[in-house]
Amino acid sequence: MRVDLGNALSDVATPGLSREALDELDERVADAHERIQRGRDESEHGYAALNLPDTANPDAIRRAVEPFADAEAVLTVGIGGSALGAATLARALPSETDAFFLDNVDPEHVTRLLDSLPLADTAVNVVSRSGTTAETLANFLVVREAMDDAGVDWTDRTFVTTGEEGNLRRLAETEDLPALAVPDGVPGRFSVLSTVGLACAAIQGHDIDAILRGAGDEADRLAGSLYDSPAYAYGAASYALEERGAAVNAMMPYAESLETFAEWFAQLWAESLGKDGRGQTPARALGATDQHSQLQLYRAGPHDKMVTLVRPEERADRDIPHTDLDGLSYLGGSSLGDLLDAEFEATEASLAAAGQPNVRVEIDRIDERSLGELLYGMEAACVLYGELAGVKTFTQPAVEWGKKAARGLLGGGDFEEADAVAEKTTLTVE
Amino acid sequence: MRVDLGNALSDVATPGLSREALDELDERVADAHERIQRGRDESEHGYAALNLPDTANPDAIRRAVEPFADAEAVLTVGIGGSALGAATLARALPSETDAFFLDNVDPEHVTRLLDSLPLADTAVNVVSRSGTTAETLANFLVVREAMDDAGVDWTDRTFVTTGEEGNLRRLAETEDLPALAVPDGVPGRFSVLSTVGLACAAIQGHDIDAILRGAGDEADRLAGSLYDSPAYAYGAASYALEERGAAVNAMMPYAESLETFAEWFAQLWAESLGKDGRGQTPARALGATDQHSQLQLYRAGPHDKMVTLVRPEERADRDIPHTDLDGLSYLGGSSLGDLLDAEFEATEASLAAAGQPNVRVEIDRIDERSLGELLYGMEAACVLYGELAGVKTFTQPAVEWGKKAARGLLGGGDFEEADAVAEKTTLTVE
Repeated sequence: MRVDLGNALSDVATPGLSREALDELDERVADAHERIQRGRDESEHGYAALNLPDTANPDAIRRAVEPFADAEAVLTVGIGGSALGAATLARALPSETDAFFLDNVDPEHVTRLLDSLPLADTAVNVVSRSGTTAETLANFLVVREAMDDAGVDWTDRTFVTTGEEGNLRRLAETEDLPALAVPDGVPGRFSVLSTVGLACAAIQGHDIDAILRGAGDEADRLAGSLYDSPAYAYGAASYALEERGAAVNAMMPYAESLETFAEWFAQLWAESLGKDGRGQTPARALGATDQHSQLQLYRAGPHDKMVTLVRPEERADRDIPHTDLDGLSYLGGSSLGDLLDAEFEATEASLAAAGQPNVRVEIDRIDERSLGELLYGMEAACVLYGELAGVKTFTQPAVEWGKKAARGLLGGGDFEEADAVAEKTTLTVE
Repeated sequence: MRVDLGNALSDVATPGLSREALDELDERVADAHERIQRGRDESEHGYAALNLPDTANPDAIRRAVEPFADAEAVLTVGIGGSALGAATLARALPSETDAFFLDNVDPEHVTRLLDSLPLADTAVNVVSRSGTTAETLANFLVVREAMDDAGVDWTDRTFVTTGEEGNLRRLAETEDLPALAVPDGVPGRFSVLSTVGLACAAIQGHDIDAILRGAGDEADRLAGSLYDSPAYAYGAASYALEERGAAVNAMMPYAESLETFAEWFAQLWAESLGKDGRGQTPARALGATDQHSQLQLYRAGPHDKMVTLVRPEERADRDIPHTDLDGLSYLGGSSLGDLLDAEFEATEASLAAAGQPNVRVEIDRIDERSLGELLYGMEAACVLYGELAGVKTFTQPAVEWGKKAARGLLGGGDFEEADAVAEKTTLTVE
């Protein structure tokens, strides 16, 4: 992973970082790096995620999914961090084995998806650390019933990824299902490099060792200075830009296959850093498509954002055929990749010319190894940002309130949160 | 469309709107409504989009696409507003005819998509108002070549949607292709209710008259008071909340099939309102999935956002099977729809309890008529917001700079913008 902060400097952009400010920040990066390394050494909660390149066990994952090697499709039933990592890899890497995700409880969507799946040839991975996530368990019950109805023995097609306790673990024991353990100390949004993210990739035939090797390379580049570590350069610059007014971080990959990566990043950033009345808001965009949409705002709107432009340096390219259409002859002889790269650089320059801060992130190509670098790099960037901001990066207390309220509404117990729902203030216009 | 502003009131939220502030704002809404109606009466640029429920010609659209009635798939080649409206409808409404979109120039994506399409049975709709959009024309040249290579007569399978002039129009004349005209005075992001958005829907067998009827119903509800018009209630509240610090508008539908609607909304909002150093930043989220992600930030982060929660009141539901799994018996006997609605209300209450402003938008169900209401309602809301903010809602000057730079980079002429690209400031960490 390479990070270019040139267009985030105060010579170029407002808000922007002066070279002096970066040097001062770098002293804090050194301290934060020590804290992070200590957390890693002691496998503290959260920090343990940064050790996954060494602690994940790809052989165990491959063994666990071996019974599903011939599956036509793999269906992950999970929500949030239990699905997004696997979905990011599945979207980025082409495979003959299709991957699907039930990460929502929309009944129409669930029905359409189940009707379209070859259930007898689908591997089902039910993922929930606690084994009690309402959405995931509800969907699993529905999938199980659909398999029963289709005459498929669901116990043959299902495995679970869960903690040592809880419903799912007990179910796996009772029904003798293959079970993968979620690693200790790794919050869902940091779990892509563990069993949680890699089982689906393994079934799809991807080289999960290479993913971990790429992540390990990025781990090796963590260092006591932002000038030596791309991940820290990104995390420190994001933090410092937010401090100076960049309340929004627009993540804009120039590759269709990284669209889900932007979603994964949004979870990582929002859930880790959004607390104590602070936190940069991630916004998702896609280049070049969103040049015809968000770019108007990013360039001419408030100076309250940074834009992160991500691209692979190499792509499998495709020539644009020659044409005699007036005014388009310049496209012929060029390629779609040339056009996309020209758009990338044009957007970057267009933002810089308007003084809007932006950061360039590049990987070699979209393959297992480079994805490992990118995903690990962004996780380390997030952890560093959290240290600099002094927030509890690895907790998510604000999602609990709503869970209790929903449970109460469904008759799953008495919760005062559910009463608050009934007391809603209304002002309806119809 | 129904809009509930209760949780945007200052009794509940910060930033929030007092009843007095709403009453004062309502006087400005009356003036803005007059301006909008005058624009509509005179079919002024942009305002003309609000007349589409009357001026669109569904019969002409159906006639133009009649030759493609038997297509297995429809491929729209277009970018930004030339694709997003059609994509929104295609994603929302199930059909036996699959819809695909080439709205990016990613070579790997283009190749994968073309390899997967039944080219001989695919209708291709090339959409560009100017007939010169580089991405769209480049993709069209690639599609044409792929059809040639597959032995398919592309002139049999292609129609264009374009203006009266330009390359595409000339091509249609030379090759005798069916051609639909884009309506005058309707910017791309406001074109979903025209030929641009409706041709694909017609091929997919959707009831485009019902879409226009729904839009017409919402048009009939435009009135000189925000208390009488859901669209204006939404637009006025968004404007007033932004004035008070809600720099971000998180659009969060509770329906998988409205995911692309959130993207369409993001373009509408960003490109129309993001100018003169102002404009609310749209962020896209999806309920209930993003409760396990963005919600932490939305609830516990800065008070710089409003969250828009959208749902249909009715869905085709699906029961959750009974279970004896410990602690989950409360789910059995309930339904996925009940769970999703409980999550919706829990999230809404959770945000309100944290004093974070949010607005509820409801439609009857996800069908043609209700989508017409929703899309028209959001367009009218955007136009009202633009009037109140005093911006030029219907222009997009900031996207032009990058277009020139990209063209220059590809050798399509001398542009000083291209020179700026070469002068990039760099600070690379690798």
